[in-house]
Amino acid sequence: MFTSVVVVVLIPAGYSNGFRGQVASAGLLDLLDEGVPGVGTYEDFNTIDWVREKSKDRDRHREINRQKKQSDLALLLSLIDAFSGWLLMLLIGLLSGALAGGIDIAAHWLTDLKEGFCMKGFWFTHEHCCWKSNETTFQRRNKCPQWKSWAELMVGVPEGASAYVVNYLMYVSWALIFSYLAVILVRAFAPYACGSGIPEIKTILSGFIIRGYLGKWTLLIKTITLVLAVSSGLSLGKEGPLVHVACCCGNILCHLFTKYRKNEAKRREVLSAASAVGVSVAFGAPIGGVLFSLEEVSYYFPLKTLWRSFFAALVAAFTLRSINPFGNSRLVLFYVEFHTPWHFLELFPFVLLGIFGGLWGALFIRANIAWCRRRKTTRLGHYPVLEVVVVALATAVLAFPNEYTRMSSSELISELFNDCSLLDSSKLCDYISPGKGADRAAGPGVYTALWQLVLALVFKMFITVVTFGMKVPSGLFIPSMAVGAIAGRLLGIGMEQLAYYHHEWPMFKGWCSLGAKCITPGLYAMLGAAACLGGVTRMTVSLVVIMFELTGGLEYIVPLMAATMTSKWVADALGREGIYEAHIRLNGYPFLEPKEEFEQKTLAMDVMRPRRNDPPLSVLTQDGMTVEEVEGMISDTSYSGFPVVVSHQSQRLVGFVLRRDLVISIDNARCCQDGIVGASRVLFTEHTPSHPYQGGPPPLSLRPILDLSPLAITDHTPMEITVDIFRKLGLRQCLVTQNGCLLGIITKKDILKHMAQMANRDPDSILFN
Amino acid sequence: MFTSVVVVVLIPAGYSNGFRGQVASAGLLDLLDEGVPGVGTYEDFNTIDWVREKSKDRDRHREINRQKKQSDLALLLSLIDAFSGWLLMLLIGLLSGALAGGIDIAAHWLTDLKEGFCMKGFWFTHEHCCWKSNETTFQRRNKCPQWKSWAELMVGVPEGASAYVVNYLMYVSWALIFSYLAVILVRAFAPYACGSGIPEIKTILSGFIIRGYLGKWTLLIKTITLVLAVSSGLSLGKEGPLVHVACCCGNILCHLFTKYRKNEAKRREVLSAASAVGVSVAFGAPIGGVLFSLEEVSYYFPLKTLWRSFFAALVAAFTLRSINPFGNSRLVLFYVEFHTPWHFLELFPFVLLGIFGGLWGALFIRANIAWCRRRKTTRLGHYPVLEVVVVALATAVLAFPNEYTRMSSSELISELFNDCSLLDSSKLCDYISPGKGADRAAGPGVYTALWQLVLALVFKMFITVVTFGMKVPSGLFIPSMAVGAIAGRLLGIGMEQLAYYHHEWPMFKGWCSLGAKCITPGLYAMLGAAACLGGVTRMTVSLVVIMFELTGGLEYIVPLMAATMTSKWVADALGREGIYEAHIRLNGYPFLEPKEEFEQKTLAMDVMRPRRNDPPLSVLTQDGMTVEEVEGMISDTSYSGFPVVVSHQSQRLVGFVLRRDLVISIDNARCCQDGIVGASRVLFTEHTPSHPYQGGPPPLSLRPILDLSPLAITDHTPMEITVDIFRKLGLRQCLVTQNGCLLGIITKKDILKHMAQMANRDPDSILFN
Repeated sequence: MFTSVVVVVLIPAGYSNGFRGQVASAGLLDLLDEGVPGVGTYEDFNTIDWVREKSKDRDRHREINRQKKQSDLALLLSLIDAFSGWLLMLLIGLLSGALAGGIDIAAHWLTDLKEGFCMKGFWFTHEHCCWKSNETTFQRRNKCPQWKSWAELMVGVPEGASAYVVNYLMYVSWALIFSYLAVILVRAFAPYACGSGIPEIKTILSGFIIRGYLGKWTLLIKTITLVLAVSSGLSLGKEGPLVHVACCCGNILCHLFTKYRKNEAKRREVLSAASAVGVSVAFGAPIGGVLFSLEEVSYYFPLKTLWRSFFAALVAAFTLRSINPFGNSRLVLFYVEFHTPWHFLELFPFVLLGIFGGLWGALFIRANIAWCRRRKTTRLGHYPVLEVVVVALATAVLAFPNEYTRMSSSELISELFNDCSLLDSSKLCDYISPGKGADRAAGPGVYTALWQLVLALVFKMFITVVTFGMKVPSGLFIPSMAVGAIAGRLLGIGMEQLAYYHHEWPMFKGWCSLGAKCITPGLYAMLGAAACLGGVTRMTVSLVVIMFELTGGLEYIVPLMAATMTSKWVADALGREGIYEAHIRLNGYPFLEPKEEFEQKTLAMDVMRPRRNDPPLSVLTQDGMTVEEVEGMISDTSYSGFPVVVSHQSQRLVGFVLRRDLVISIDNARCCQDGIVGASRVLFTEHTPSHPYQGGPPPLSLRPILDLSPLAITDHTPMEITVDIFRKLGLRQCLVTQNGCLLGIITKKDILKHMAQMANRDPDSILFN
Repeated sequence: MFTSVVVVVLIPAGYSNGFRGQVASAGLLDLLDEGVPGVGTYEDFNTIDWVREKSKDRDRHREINRQKKQSDLALLLSLIDAFSGWLLMLLIGLLSGALAGGIDIAAHWLTDLKEGFCMKGFWFTHEHCCWKSNETTFQRRNKCPQWKSWAELMVGVPEGASAYVVNYLMYVSWALIFSYLAVILVRAFAPYACGSGIPEIKTILSGFIIRGYLGKWTLLIKTITLVLAVSSGLSLGKEGPLVHVACCCGNILCHLFTKYRKNEAKRREVLSAASAVGVSVAFGAPIGGVLFSLEEVSYYFPLKTLWRSFFAALVAAFTLRSINPFGNSRLVLFYVEFHTPWHFLELFPFVLLGIFGGLWGALFIRANIAWCRRRKTTRLGHYPVLEVVVVALATAVLAFPNEYTRMSSSELISELFNDCSLLDSSKLCDYISPGKGADRAAGPGVYTALWQLVLALVFKMFITVVTFGMKVPSGLFIPSMAVGAIAGRLLGIGMEQLAYYHHEWPMFKGWCSLGAKCITPGLYAMLGAAACLGGVTRMTVSLVVIMFELTGGLEYIVPLMAATMTSKWVADALGREGIYEAHIRLNGYPFLEPKEEFEQKTLAMDVMRPRRNDPPLSVLTQDGMTVEEVEGMISDTSYSGFPVVVSHQSQRLVGFVLRRDLVISIDNARCCQDGIVGASRVLFTEHTPSHPYQGGPPPLSLRPILDLSPLAITDHTPMEITVDIFRKLGLRQCLVTQNGCLLGIITKKDILKHMAQMANRDPDSILFN
């Protein structure tokens, strides 16, 4: 005969109800923090509950504050705890900056390896190889005896048809080797290392669990394969993947600090900062990186994070600068040296570039998504290695003959941004009257370059569509910018020549007189790059700030605003989603877009489950069920949680209990607690009955795992408000009541399915909870 | 005998329940938008309901989208509606930029008037007067025959004891006249024009109504009195008030667009952008302005606003530049020209400046709040005009003898930031070996300047405490920066001379060799200014970005971060609140600080009303009360809303109705609707009874004004979550239930009172709802 009521001594680390508070203040916290393993954690591919995570952190914080007053050691520990966030940011900045520097150097070296070999030592890049060579002049920077092209090494002659063929073959072979290695490594060791990673990071930051996505294997493999993929000459960039790399660093370094290791919400604060770090090292733009994180990637971004992100972004940028991978001790990737003023009338071509960028962005997204969907649904998706190798082969074969596609995309962009100085040897600078500060007629070199650029533009536009989304690390920033920069430079040269030959035209009259330089083609290239990047990603302020940090002056902000605003408007008119949102939707991640307004006029009762003809909601009663009945309900259903009501008759809501916690607690009680059998009553009430059940087994009190403060809305709540509540509070589910009685439940997945349905899309495309 | 049920045809513009939706789709929207005058609006000094306002806007948006599909005209109107936000931003930027330019020019002119008079025309400032004078040289820029000091005009001699006395007297008299005019104008026409306005704008943006605070009278009077107050030489700046001026512009221009005029939430989006515009024109820092708005002022800042704010801030900055008030076509207020590198060891003095800034910030806030509290509680507050005049007299009398306090604070800061060039005539640049790029020994001028600066520092530190909070427009940015700049320059000169005389000291060895210039005192001044501003306002990223935009280079970001981080940490250790939060609290505004975490372990049931021994909550039942009973309840209580329950027995929650809506609807029904008498039953049910009450008057259905989706939380919800819900959703009140039954209500004021109590402050200091 059992006369005592057994209370399970297990309190999930995350529950903030009164009971918990009492136990915590009784000094049991160390025990509680450990808890029963698994209670309060999440399964893979599931949504976290922000409210619970934040409560957990506040409990921790309160406990530290309480202990602080008691001993000096605790005071010291509390100080360490307070500064651990800053220390973590410092470490992330240092590690990411170092990795980015390493990636830059390695990619440079491998890219040069496609063309030749340094006799001074195989580890020299072309530039370093010729660094101290006496024969290096401005015109022939890339000719020095120590650097041998493959043709020189194999055939022995530097030029001629056979040399060309040898160089061509070597270029293609290296491209194939690099791309094959990259895709094989990704497939073998870290499938998550492919793609840009930004869609997944956005989803993770919005409160989703993808285990291993930011793990050490992903970091290692992504770092290596990124270098290989970039060097293989595929039309992809390293900027997006660098954000992924920085987030991996952030996630891994989180494990050094309990505060961040154990709390999913706190960890997401760190990851927000890490994504700022990623952009900061990619472009050398710390402020732009922070704004990128704020505008594009982050979901929950407290202002404390803003300050820390900025700190981390700065540390990373300065670490990268001290590594000096570009060999010019500059912070930014594309440094723009011109400061020539622009004229008001030039806004017209700038807006044209914006329109081009918007059109291309929208079309690119559609084409790329269509291609990725085809890859997912047809047999194409079964041969990822072959796909990468074939695309790499096609890229290399088509790219080599054209000088502007043969060089890496970042070099191409640098060259297009560049305003010709007197000593410049580039074909783009082959002007007939190359006086600085004067207008100039294009020479034959410029005309050749124009044709090559047109071909390069068409090539890049097509090849990028099939490249983005393959199973190698691939960023979109650089290819988009390259497309825009080519288009911009073409327009810029066109305008320049127009102005040169037609000074008398009304549109040039007055500001573009004979002999004065009035059009800067490099500026057009820059604006085109910004417009295309804006069209693809739909970034706004962060894009302008990144470009502002590249030029370092306020003079081009108005043109930049004009181009990017036009680009965004045009692109938005053709399709609301940016490339990252489109990929999130393609993958069916549960991402509740924070920027989009919910336009429909539906109510919570239209969205909640159970629907009209469904079986009633599975609920637990607060004191009317046995362990067996509960176990039966768990095995019959697959819901991730159950509401607890007063009784089946009244349906008045008491609380909510999570399936995972319930399973773990019952298993734990069954194995370790005396007297708990199938017939034991499960109690969620506050007071266990004073008269224990005569003759029956002792009841099992599960109140500690009961969430006593589930959020409930009424059935008449408009869905727009419901969506807002989900977004702002980061809910996982919400109960629906009518006049105080439980009616149903809405989960994030239900909302996303409803939104898909309203937009005439397949609601089953939302895959995860 | 009445056989029909009269339904009030009045639907508040903001209600988004099912009923509303049906009526709206029936095409009644134009009628609805007008509604019964007053329903859906707020009383003065009350908190708005963000949820309701946002629903209202979405309804409007949906209606436009619906109509758009029907006619081309509606399509055009919808496009105009979509672009009206941008147009509004453009107008705000233009108007604010123009006003800021006007203020700058007028303040310059009046400030110069204190010293003398231009014979070429009274409207010339000193600088413009001597602009084309042949005798103007670098050394004697401010000596030209056309410009007469008052002594020259009155006594006829430019120098000597009597001239000094005359100039002194005129200086003091003008100061008295200006300050008297300023305070009289403020008191007579626009009492809201006083102070910096930022605390009130923060409160308004958090969802509070202060009618007239951003009105046209305030704008007019603030613009005029700001010029007067700045010119009077009082220790105040125009940067904070410029934010107020820009917000007034934003608010007034909102009236041009229905979308913004009628919606409190949308208008706050515009005001957020306007505050960015204010900082943008104050410092010529558009990015810094946007970040300031985001970090410091705004409460609810959707990302769409970020982009628009940036646009408005840019327009304003360029408008100001085209007005060119400083006569140098520079965008920024304090342009810094030096780009000399700094050494790692200098971080130590930079951190010292940070500590100084933090200490001064914290002490200033304490002293200023103590003084303001004294003003509020003692007889001092009864003589605001006298107070201003006395402080102005004291300031003028003490300031005139010292060159560095006689000049305006912005000139002082410019001079302190300045690194001495060869032609500089300032005393601060009186070095014995003034070779550029070389180290230098201080001459007698520098030593004199040092003593004067020490006196100026002490003077500014004290006088600013009593000045801020007087009944004239007064900003804190410039005085704080002046204090910091003086301290920084003093430390900078000290370091410089130390380095000059002690090259062999270990701390200078290696980087500060003989003949090389290694310390830039101007940089120290800049960092000191940033540190003090940071200590007072607790700005972080926005401060660094504003200073970064002043210098335009990334080289000083690390020193800036070091100084501002230290300053914030030190100041936070001495008191959590910045000056604006402290003033909000002093005035008892209902502001729920978004940055501060709620640390206490209380539950919703501890905070809700009714408390344990209070009378029960006043509730309406859904169908059991008559018009008379409802009116009685309204007159007996002063609550701003009443929950509606199923019945007094069950207390199950149906909805919530606002007092204001209830009063207006009943009055309206009584006057305009047939058969509504005191004995009419008030119905909140969905279905009016099919059998009307035989013999009784027709019932009054008030379901249209019933909010069917009031947010309800359980009594066990921790207060930290409750506070989060209030903050994030912008609630005005929230109902508390237990097992589905209504238990009580929590308002924003209850939360603020509870927080005050927990922090051992007087809960009655929270004055408004």
